Amino acid sequence: MKTALNLETIYSPIQDELPQAEEKILDILATTNDLSSDVIRYFFKAKGKFLRPALCLFGASFGGKVDSRAVQMAAALEIFHSATLIHDDIIDSSYLRRNMPTINAAWNSQVAVLVGDFLHDKAIGAVFALNHPKAIASFLETAGIVCDGEILELSEKGNFDLTEQKYLTIIEKKTASLLACCLETGGFLAGLADEQAAALKRYGILFGNAFQIIDDCLDFAGEENEFGKTLGSDLAQGVLTLPLIRLISLSDTKLKEDVINLLKDEKRPGRLGQLLAYLNQYETLDYAYQRAKELTDLARAELSIFKEHPAKKSLNLLLDYILERNR
Amino acid sequence: MKTALNLETIYSPIQDELPQAEEKILDILATTNDLSSDVIRYFFKAKGKFLRPALCLFGASFGGKVDSRAVQMAAALEIFHSATLIHDDIIDSSYLRRNMPTINAAWNSQVAVLVGDFLHDKAIGAVFALNHPKAIASFLETAGIVCDGEILELSEKGNFDLTEQKYLTIIEKKTASLLACCLETGGFLAGLADEQAAALKRYGILFGNAFQIIDDCLDFAGEENEFGKTLGSDLAQGVLTLPLIRLISLSDTKLKEDVINLLKDEKRPGRLGQLLAYLNQYETLDYAYQRAKELTDLARAELSIFKEHPAKKSLNLLLDYILERNR
Repeated sequence: MKTALNLETIYSPIQDELPQAEEKILDILATTNDLSSDVIRYFFKAKGKFLRPALCLFGASFGGKVDSRAVQMAAALEIFHSATLIHDDIIDSSYLRRNMPTINAAWNSQVAVLVGDFLHDKAIGAVFALNHPKAIASFLETAGIVCDGEILELSEKGNFDLTEQKYLTIIEKKTASLLACCLETGGFLAGLADEQAAALKRYGILFGNAFQIIDDCLDFAGEENEFGKTLGSDLAQGVLTLPLIRLISLSDTKLKEDVINLLKDEKRPGRLGQLLAYLNQYETLDYAYQRAKELTDLARAELSIFKEHPAKKSLNLLLDYILERNR
Repeated sequence: MKTALNLETIYSPIQDELPQAEEKILDILATTNDLSSDVIRYFFKAKGKFLRPALCLFGASFGGKVDSRAVQMAAALEIFHSATLIHDDIIDSSYLRRNMPTINAAWNSQVAVLVGDFLHDKAIGAVFALNHPKAIASFLETAGIVCDGEILELSEKGNFDLTEQKYLTIIEKKTASLLACCLETGGFLAGLADEQAAALKRYGILFGNAFQIIDDCLDFAGEENEFGKTLGSDLAQGVLTLPLIRLISLSDTKLKEDVINLLKDEKRPGRLGQLLAYLNQYETLDYAYQRAKELTDLARAELSIFKEHPAKKSLNLLLDYILERNR
């Protein structure tokens, strides 16, 4: 009997430290400002996957010690990620996240701008307080890259000639770079050798790119009766992702025109169903999945520098998990 | 014959370094991202008062050397300030700044959120690169305070019982703390003694509070025929400032009710003129001006720790300048 892969199992080697990171988040964000305090409590009530703290703690655990500094770094990384989510929800005018109204919906976008800034500042302050130059430098560089990736994505909205290469650049910057930073800084804090930290960083980039490709595929894979809600939220934003980029690149002129007209004409009845039919006909969701699979194979190879270790096992399982996940 | 006070004269002791700081800003913000690059060029084309870089350079010049590190700090502080302005314009839905359409108007609020984040990250990166722990700590702490002040202001919008004390807390956090940080970090980088840097910081707080009080008064002091445009932009946002806070605190119950009804009823014809008449009748603009004057006297006293010095002369003139300025 095959046991379904779940995050709880994968996270078991760091099960003691993860709740500490969760507590530390609220510690770092403690404030006497009532409004901030309400918004922060609200936002962190809905649990995410906690992927970034987990990766940081795994990175540290290769060094044999997951101490309070690694826990603080893990917390800071989740706070930073939360700040980007809060600002993303303004940018995308999203009204739901983790099944709860977003901050811009529950309060307004003014509050979301400022609370995002507040989290951003607090995350940087917490990293700086660790007084570890390599971890600080990695974090600050990554913050710049993430933001640059988001601006790039925004500037490519509505570009139907977006290449696969540029798409990969965008997802590497906006998603994979932070996941890589989590692993690398965790490793730095635990005193890993440079080549080990570098391998973790490369794993993080490959894992992150695969993660985002699958995430983008899932945007097309809602239940039939939920299509209207779940299918194509990137599409609604004019953001092209790998399955569509591939479809456009494969199509002959006539079909390409047809697809682009479908993409442009948001009101066309049956538009989403028609696009999905094309994606299936040209097997571009399979293509994207295959690309993600290749990336996970490369990621797995990066871990060969480590000998058997619970964290290594978990990072390998995580690669299987993202390929299997359906939400 | 009295020479009118102007910033050019006041800035003359740092006239060589200020343009360096201006160049450094574009250096720090250099990016291969076309959209970011366009927005940044656009934003910095309109010159502001450049008060924050100037204060940082004055702080450094007390130490006898204004080197490239002080120039970089000055640039980073202006970039940080610009990031807050860009986000403020989203928050206030402002469409004009320095006589040019804001970024949210010329592009959209998505771009403004992300470019603000980008500037914020770059400012922090530039400060961090100076590798001066006291300057970094001061800057990061201040970034948190500024944001906290803005959230506080937002949460007090529409509160007609706002006290003068709370108003002062808000302006100290959102405005004065950064001006103080400019002077203090400039002093740190030039190796000033702790008590001198502390005096500069206290000067900065007092100066900054006076500056903001006058700025808030000017919100009521547009030309008669421009009232519709320039008068009461704080008012339109539901932000109460000192002249109105004082008016409400002085009024008897009947008048207080009248004023609050005027404040609430945005569509009432002649509303602004009526409020202005009350402000004049109760001399609360004079009251606010007087409070600012007292703060500048205290600020002046803080400079007694320094012997005669061109920067000291300029900081004293700056106190006169803000009391005299009319825009």
